[in-house]
Amino acid sequence: MPKPVTGDQVAAQHGVALQVRRLALDTGRENVAVVLAGSASLRPEVFRSFSRVAITVGERTVIATLMTSDDPALIGPTELGLAEPAFRRLGEPEGTTVRLSPIAPPESVDAVRRKINGRTLATADIEAIVRDIATYRYADIEIAAFLVGAASFMSTEELLALTRAMADAGTRLVWKRPLVVDKHCIGGIPGNRTSMIVVPIVAAHGLLIPKTSSRAITSPAGTADTMEVLARVDLDVDEMRRVVETCGGCLVWGGHVRLSPADDVLISVERPLGIDNRELMVASIMSKKLAAGSTRLLIDIPVGPHAKVHDADEAMRLRKLFEFLGDRLGLPTDVVITDGRQPIGTGIGPVLEARDVMQVLSNDPAAPADLREKALRIAGHVLEYDPALRGGAGYARAKELLDGGGALAAMQRIIDAQGPPPTRATLGHLTEEIVAEQAGVVAAIDNLRLNRLARLAGAPIEKGAGISIHKKVGDHVDRGEPLYRVHASEPFEFDSAVTAARREHGYRFLDRP
Amino acid sequence: MPKPVTGDQVAAQHGVALQVRRLALDTGRENVAVVLAGSASLRPEVFRSFSRVAITVGERTVIATLMTSDDPALIGPTELGLAEPAFRRLGEPEGTTVRLSPIAPPESVDAVRRKINGRTLATADIEAIVRDIATYRYADIEIAAFLVGAASFMSTEELLALTRAMADAGTRLVWKRPLVVDKHCIGGIPGNRTSMIVVPIVAAHGLLIPKTSSRAITSPAGTADTMEVLARVDLDVDEMRRVVETCGGCLVWGGHVRLSPADDVLISVERPLGIDNRELMVASIMSKKLAAGSTRLLIDIPVGPHAKVHDADEAMRLRKLFEFLGDRLGLPTDVVITDGRQPIGTGIGPVLEARDVMQVLSNDPAAPADLREKALRIAGHVLEYDPALRGGAGYARAKELLDGGGALAAMQRIIDAQGPPPTRATLGHLTEEIVAEQAGVVAAIDNLRLNRLARLAGAPIEKGAGISIHKKVGDHVDRGEPLYRVHASEPFEFDSAVTAARREHGYRFLDRP
Repeated sequence: MPKPVTGDQVAAQHGVALQVRRLALDTGRENVAVVLAGSASLRPEVFRSFSRVAITVGERTVIATLMTSDDPALIGPTELGLAEPAFRRLGEPEGTTVRLSPIAPPESVDAVRRKINGRTLATADIEAIVRDIATYRYADIEIAAFLVGAASFMSTEELLALTRAMADAGTRLVWKRPLVVDKHCIGGIPGNRTSMIVVPIVAAHGLLIPKTSSRAITSPAGTADTMEVLARVDLDVDEMRRVVETCGGCLVWGGHVRLSPADDVLISVERPLGIDNRELMVASIMSKKLAAGSTRLLIDIPVGPHAKVHDADEAMRLRKLFEFLGDRLGLPTDVVITDGRQPIGTGIGPVLEARDVMQVLSNDPAAPADLREKALRIAGHVLEYDPALRGGAGYARAKELLDGGGALAAMQRIIDAQGPPPTRATLGHLTEEIVAEQAGVVAAIDNLRLNRLARLAGAPIEKGAGISIHKKVGDHVDRGEPLYRVHASEPFEFDSAVTAARREHGYRFLDRP
Repeated sequence: MPKPVTGDQVAAQHGVALQVRRLALDTGRENVAVVLAGSASLRPEVFRSFSRVAITVGERTVIATLMTSDDPALIGPTELGLAEPAFRRLGEPEGTTVRLSPIAPPESVDAVRRKINGRTLATADIEAIVRDIATYRYADIEIAAFLVGAASFMSTEELLALTRAMADAGTRLVWKRPLVVDKHCIGGIPGNRTSMIVVPIVAAHGLLIPKTSSRAITSPAGTADTMEVLARVDLDVDEMRRVVETCGGCLVWGGHVRLSPADDVLISVERPLGIDNRELMVASIMSKKLAAGSTRLLIDIPVGPHAKVHDADEAMRLRKLFEFLGDRLGLPTDVVITDGRQPIGTGIGPVLEARDVMQVLSNDPAAPADLREKALRIAGHVLEYDPALRGGAGYARAKELLDGGGALAAMQRIIDAQGPPPTRATLGHLTEEIVAEQAGVVAAIDNLRLNRLARLAGAPIEKGAGISIHKKVGDHVDRGEPLYRVHASEPFEFDSAVTAARREHGYRFLDRP
């Protein structure tokens, strides 16, 4: 493709002055600007639909995709419509005069083309790509092309460069402590809310643990959704810093703090494409942790037939990749392989999972033992990053902090520091027991199926919706005995979930124990 | 990525009845539907921003990407906004009640994922992908992922399957003649309007030549733009059929006839990504010709330092690929390699190129000899597909038809049958001679530079804008003698082009002849 001559490009770029108008349209990650088609000030040769444009006001520039409208009521001839995300990113009131200029695609797209053609990229190429992606300069198809190219092959040096560049492209937190710990779970296991127990234990011990989490994407609850039952989670980076400095830890949503923003953009295209690539996943996780200022990291890889990682071989490959990358990036990383064959705890869905967590923290006799044990094991591992703790003493120290109430107190401090949640969530009042159609011993529980049912019930949007589990693997059930309870708030969702659960409840039995 | 359970999917798909409202927004190839955020009838779990939705009325379904608006003035709570392309494709008036249902991405996207992961696809996979692309079921990022995967590697069988599937995915013309000829030029050479001379010669001889052409994309004129100076070109497929049956040939724009519509969609994503892949290009050309019902095809590959194909090796590889594919697809294909070192004819831009063409057809002594010779050579080759013509007699027969006025008469019939152009285009009245800054013999002319200058002057949007060439390679010029004339209609464009031409006119000289 012939590159435009830069001199002429500049000549054609006198730009046009237009008044900003907000266009009430959520175009997601992509910035969209709209002009009136055939408006005299906009030369059609220069301002074509789907060309990329620069919108400049003072020193600030937002890059957008240009669309046209033929309705003067929507966009006047001297107006520039900005769809909601572009309007927000420009951050100026309606009526502000801005300059609109055509631009060529970012130069780094040339490097993407080389990658597509099978070349290996230099570190500077990758840095330029990531910088342009993080500042929303790429169109979605350009992001998709980069991801497919990167997923098809990345050298070790490319992977390191990508991870570093992603970590560097947004906020990088710096803490006044030599040791900053973090933990991350690869995910996929319903109810697995260990972070909300590990963070208060570790903070109570006195280590710094600035934890950010995601909201649910395909699951019925992310840690951020569950924490939001108890406290506000959409903190900005300054608020997050204050909470960590006050409490030693936090449990905030990663969406507002701009740690590795290129990662957020890449994930938003990876997900609908279903790109499931080991290297890209590790780069994503490590870049977030580097940006958060962590110095020691523990990764939890649950393994099971319906977990993200299906077998020990795959878990081992992933472990080696984390260890290797962690060493090269100056963020030594350990991996624990855990049992991912069934849900952890008894609740699936934000309110139910928050209840499990608070039962564990408050040493309630009804607290789910498996969630408590797993959290203690992971917290024990993280605590041993403390040089003052003897090797092997982590688990006992974690148990001491949990049993003695130190962890609960730390959690309460974090909740108070983050502030109250935007709305008070209560458990869904529509309930139905799903029962065993035969007697037997539970042989397996399908995580994906239970996730799916909890989502049908309304989670995570309805925080009180979800599933409350009565029977786990190895439990005996009689015919007609309840396996779990469906909770919902809306009749339509309740019906959908119950109907689907009756058709296929996700449990498998051994006929004769 | 876990696949949604189909049974539940159905359960969640009761759908919602909404009234269509046209949204004056050109979203290009992508169908976009807009609903009011938080509208009670739209469950947020089911209707999420950027999910894919089906819009159904009667038997017809249009697939679209869903966006949300928070402005009830733009979209009411029981309305479904359809951006212009989706509104047009649905083809129902505003106020029509339609059903909106969430859908999973097309199943063929799974095959795209396998391709990304390096697998070879079965013919049935490729057919499903192409069918879904041709019916606008793919999101842009999915198209980009398929293209990058296909560009990175395609087996011969995959390439054949892709070409066949593309040809089958739209209209397929069938003619009541055993012999239907066509010609195609790989492009990149300014002024190279041989089709507009070859088609009337071949039609005058009595062979069927149903020619469709593209509009300019990155060049200052496509054959469709130039033909539109003389006649209407946006015929639909029935109109095209009538013209060919009456006149033996046509010169219409390919945009309305839906020959290989998947190709149009793929190209619209290939282009901004700058994917320049030999296999994809050949599949694109062959699919269009198969769909047009051609049985013999001649390909013109111009070779030159600023042509699309730079050297004889690359031309030979391309030739072999065309020949192989043509044989396997039942469309025997020949290739002529031509001189692509400089523009053909004297005009660059629609009106100027149309003038060259009509001068050649009317045997005007001022007609450019190079355009005449190249057209005769190609027409001669195509005419020899006629079994009644002796081998080697094609050129003489073409010359006879051109010199005797038969070709001009055929062109006049085609122009009359296609109808008058939408507007009468006249040559740009703003002119300026660009002169040599030194004496010498012209050693080379930069095609890309002249294309770029003609576009700056306003072509192809301004049909009368462009460049009229005085000097070709081998000509002697004195210092200060004109090389070419810039034509424009708009002062701003005129200034841009003249300024750029003065800075770099695109000619190189031998100092001493």
